[in-house]
Amino acid sequence: MKQAFHTLTVSTRGPGLYEFTDKAEQFVRSEKIENGLLTCFVRHTSASLVIQENADPDVQRDLQDFFAWLATSGPEFRHTTEGPDDMPSHIRSALTQTSIGIPVQQGKLALGTWQGIYLFEHRDAPHRREVAMHLVGE
Amino acid sequence: MKQAFHTLTVSTRGPGLYEFTDKAEQFVRSEKIENGLLTCFVRHTSASLVIQENADPDVQRDLQDFFAWLATSGPEFRHTTEGPDDMPSHIRSALTQTSIGIPVQQGKLALGTWQGIYLFEHRDAPHRREVAMHLVGE
Amino acid sequence: MKQAFHTLTVSTRGPGLYEFTDKAEQFVRSEKIENGLLTCFVRHTSASLVIQENADPDVQRDLQDFFAWLATSGPEFRHTTEGPDDMPSHIRSALTQTSIGIPVQQGKLALGTWQGIYLFEHRDAPHRREVAMHLVGE
Repeated sequence: MKQAFHTLTVSTRGPGLYEFTDKAEQFVRSEKIENGLLTCFVRHTSASLVIQENADPDVQRDLQDFFAWLATSGPEFRHTTEGPDDMPSHIRSALTQTSIGIPVQQGKLALGTWQGIYLFEHRDAPHRREVAMHLVGE
Repeated sequence: MKQAFHTLTVSTRGPGLYEFTDKAEQFVRSEKIENGLLTCFVRHTSASLVIQENADPDVQRDLQDFFAWLATSGPEFRHTTEGPDDMPSHIRSALTQTSIGIPVQQGKLALGTWQGIYLFEHRDAPHRREVAMHLVGE
Repeated sequence: MKQAFHTLTVSTRGPGLYEFTDKAEQFVRSEKIENGLLTCFVRHTSASLVIQENADPDVQRDLQDFFAWLATSGPEFRHTTEGPDDMPSHIRSALTQTSIGIPVQQGKLALGTWQGIYLFEHRDAPHRREVAMHLVGE
């Protein structure tokens, strides 16, 4: 049994889903771990992770619109010093996921046919986001 | 340290929670790994995972109603080609979990007294859902 | 490759976020595992886990207010026997996370600059909450 680490950088240009399935698969292939577990962890509190349909881009737009609506539908915020998009970003992060664990079998991620791994950007300004990946297996 | 894999199939008959705690425990027992970590991963984007109370069935009904209400309370959807229950299913998936990691100690899952592991089905039609499980330990 | 376990107890005094980053780091240090993966798992269905900003305490208050609002904005509940704060607690748990996996590198959790690990208490009465932790690595 062995393990490997990689930190992925995702450049974002405003709110929405940014797929990194290919880069996660590339990391698994490069480490030559045939069977194991990949854990992805986002190192931010205003961006998160989500696994969603990678077929129709409208799914991603609808998700973006839903979370934009939901995070601004509640009571007024105290924390506004970093801009009006900051507190809704924390809420959208809390509602989705900070880490996701994906089994690896025969050199491939055990994703379903329509599953893609996305960084979910919640802030308006461009950002460089980091996803820390851990792989254990053999 | 060793690892094991198993893919569980859960047959669903419409939206709601389907418990598979027993099957997860059975997998752990069959692999004779006394201490380690079990990761459950759902291979779909319109069904998800949730750990919830397994005592009063009303909790599961209330959860189902709440998520049905929430996922249809936002802006109108673009993605409607797969039916009116499709986009709300993606949203309900994004709001809950795609993977859950559970420590295993002395041959048992470290679940609390009232915790059950559920597949959360979001679509109206019957489906066969797959949960990929990874176990590492010794 | 080796593994270690620890169960952390968090005493809560009503709804809100209770940070345990220090205790998680202390566990990692004490086990002398330099590189690996830490998994935190909450053993309850009315408390959950969330990674959020640890700088401005207003972020935590706004999160608490948002989830309090959201979980009581839907249809009426059937499950009320354990008090009016019980079913909203299950919903708030389902909306956040039961387990979080965090890579460990060079003896430290791979957290971003502003990330803290929190137990999110959802019930009104004081509770003693348990977080089961699993560490694998070398």
